[in-house]
Amino acid sequence: MKALTRFSLPSPPPRCGWPNPNHPNPPPNHLSFASTSWAAATPLSASAHPSPEKPPVVVVGSANADIYVEIDRLPREGETVAALTGQTLAGGKGANQACCGGRLAHPTYFIGQVGDDAHGRLIEDALSSGNVRLDHLSRVAGAPTGHAIVMLQSDGRNSIIIVGGANMSCWPDDPREEDLEVIRRAGVLLLQREIPDRVNIQVAQVAKSAGIPVILDAGGVEDPVPKELFNFVDIFSPNETELARLTGMPTDTFEQISQAANKCHKMGVKQILVKLGAKGSALFVEGEELIRQPVIPAAKVLDTTGAGDTFTAAFAVAMVEGKPKKECMKFASAAASLCVQVKGAIPSMPARTAVMELLQSIQVEDVMKISD
Amino acid sequence: MKALTRFSLPSPPPRCGWPNPNHPNPPPNHLSFASTSWAAATPLSASAHPSPEKPPVVVVGSANADIYVEIDRLPREGETVAALTGQTLAGGKGANQACCGGRLAHPTYFIGQVGDDAHGRLIEDALSSGNVRLDHLSRVAGAPTGHAIVMLQSDGRNSIIIVGGANMSCWPDDPREEDLEVIRRAGVLLLQREIPDRVNIQVAQVAKSAGIPVILDAGGVEDPVPKELFNFVDIFSPNETELARLTGMPTDTFEQISQAANKCHKMGVKQILVKLGAKGSALFVEGEELIRQPVIPAAKVLDTTGAGDTFTAAFAVAMVEGKPKKECMKFASAAASLCVQVKGAIPSMPARTAVMELLQSIQVEDVMKISD
Repeated sequence: MKALTRFSLPSPPPRCGWPNPNHPNPPPNHLSFASTSWAAATPLSASAHPSPEKPPVVVVGSANADIYVEIDRLPREGETVAALTGQTLAGGKGANQACCGGRLAHPTYFIGQVGDDAHGRLIEDALSSGNVRLDHLSRVAGAPTGHAIVMLQSDGRNSIIIVGGANMSCWPDDPREEDLEVIRRAGVLLLQREIPDRVNIQVAQVAKSAGIPVILDAGGVEDPVPKELFNFVDIFSPNETELARLTGMPTDTFEQISQAANKCHKMGVKQILVKLGAKGSALFVEGEELIRQPVIPAAKVLDTTGAGDTFTAAFAVAMVEGKPKKECMKFASAAASLCVQVKGAIPSMPARTAVMELLQSIQVEDVMKISD
Repeated sequence: MKALTRFSLPSPPPRCGWPNPNHPNPPPNHLSFASTSWAAATPLSASAHPSPEKPPVVVVGSANADIYVEIDRLPREGETVAALTGQTLAGGKGANQACCGGRLAHPTYFIGQVGDDAHGRLIEDALSSGNVRLDHLSRVAGAPTGHAIVMLQSDGRNSIIIVGGANMSCWPDDPREEDLEVIRRAGVLLLQREIPDRVNIQVAQVAKSAGIPVILDAGGVEDPVPKELFNFVDIFSPNETELARLTGMPTDTFEQISQAANKCHKMGVKQILVKLGAKGSALFVEGEELIRQPVIPAAKVLDTTGAGDTFTAAFAVAMVEGKPKKECMKFASAAASLCVQVKGAIPSMPARTAVMELLQSIQVEDVMKISD
């Protein structure tokens, strides 16, 4: 049972705060993990297996405990109601995307923060079993692990209470040198918007200076993306709704989406990777021809949770492995297609072998179509 | 850090269900704990230390993860709101009472169920650090750990969503023989109403047959107590509200409380231990003189959560140690007085030394009053 694969934490527990000459707090300790080979952890065919020397995917972002409760109706003030069922799962866009990288058998680091609590350990276990390297996950004492209470009502509506916790607070004033080092030798830096913009800007700037490509997934807070952050981003990846919100433009038709993507170019980002759900995806590179990727149909769409995270992370993995843009989008689409066939976010992240098999089966279909 | 003191679980993980000749499921495994001496775990003065040969307190009951979120207002249907803070603590009346027994340095067993999840591990850690013996705690795969979402609103009102989970489901058809054995050699069996009545009836019957006193704390579901359960109960312990609800009688004055207690006698329970909050407590023994215990004033009342559980469990500990009824009530009052001075339920359970010191200081005060 994975949950019991525990690791030892150097004492004393890490504290909130960051070492700078004027700061009294000691630096947060980091979780010690025995260095395990991701290659050994995930059985893969040799052909499907990227070289372990490849630079890693580094995800900086959020980790959350998602507490789902199914209820007939919301309680009123002062009222107690019984839920029909409840389940608590590891999530958060950062952790989701890191798990996707790990499951796709690419060396993946997660730089993030959890509290010193049961929900933090839930996340550590999920990341660990997703082959994510946790050397750069901080356990902070000053905040609870971020969590969200998702109240699923029988009429299909969800009401959500979000506790930002360690995702939103206790970040050091300046990033740790160890974290910056892993970013500097990354193949790609993957960001989302569930941690403070300040942190995203700090790490994106370092990546940019080191010539590391930066992908920003638009998911998370609804505030405008700071111009300073956009300056350091190579690929910006919103879905239609996020694109509409961030540009203030409609995105109902493909023409409108193109115009909105064009506005993003003017805002300073050269590549806009738009996720269009059942309509596939599109990559708008300034000054280049548009690339469209139709959706790879799923046998059965069971749950789309985490599909966007899977798409962005799989795209990043393919990119860092040197695939051409078109191939990256196909790879990402295949991963997302597999994701929607399994319930949950992290549990639905596909293994590399499954993605390769799906892509191969499509290729066979294409060849058969041509020979028909 | 206590949370990292892990234990090993025999594989495979336990499943929901119970071995009877017609049932295909294997019996739930139980958590293996290295047998640790509670005596060694809690530093106590020799005088304050009961003999380890004394029969244990056995608590059968609920264990819960209490998820507190502080919000300005409840979300509407379909809405997402940000919480001000959040915190998740181990609780449940069964686990609370067991922890109280453990903290009071009396050998205490907890028979209960958690799910195979992060909240289950939170509870295991809390019980373990409360010196509770966990050999009889089951980890079931068929249900989540019971949890409650407590939405604390800025106007002071709380709305609560309860997930019964492993507290309410997955109990075996018939109690495990190992559990019955520990009940048969108990000094007292302590029950509450947060697990199915059926389970309470089964274990109470076994205790009664073995001549073990049974205490039923009235806290939990608001349904009437089944007559069958009352038949096996020696001491029934409600607070004023519970007494009113279960008898259908007013409990505003002490006269009314006496009449309601009298009705409980007629319902089949000989001893009624009523918790009256700031007004102290009262023990109504059928055919005997009433015993009243005034509250032992706390220096500062910070949080009354768990005070009722502390009172009942401390009473049970004193009883099993052979103290006369009056002394039991005084001991319980001292424990409750210490409990309300600390925030939270389990974190506020007092150590035996603290209770003994408080009782001694009262005695000194009494002597001084007499000599004045």
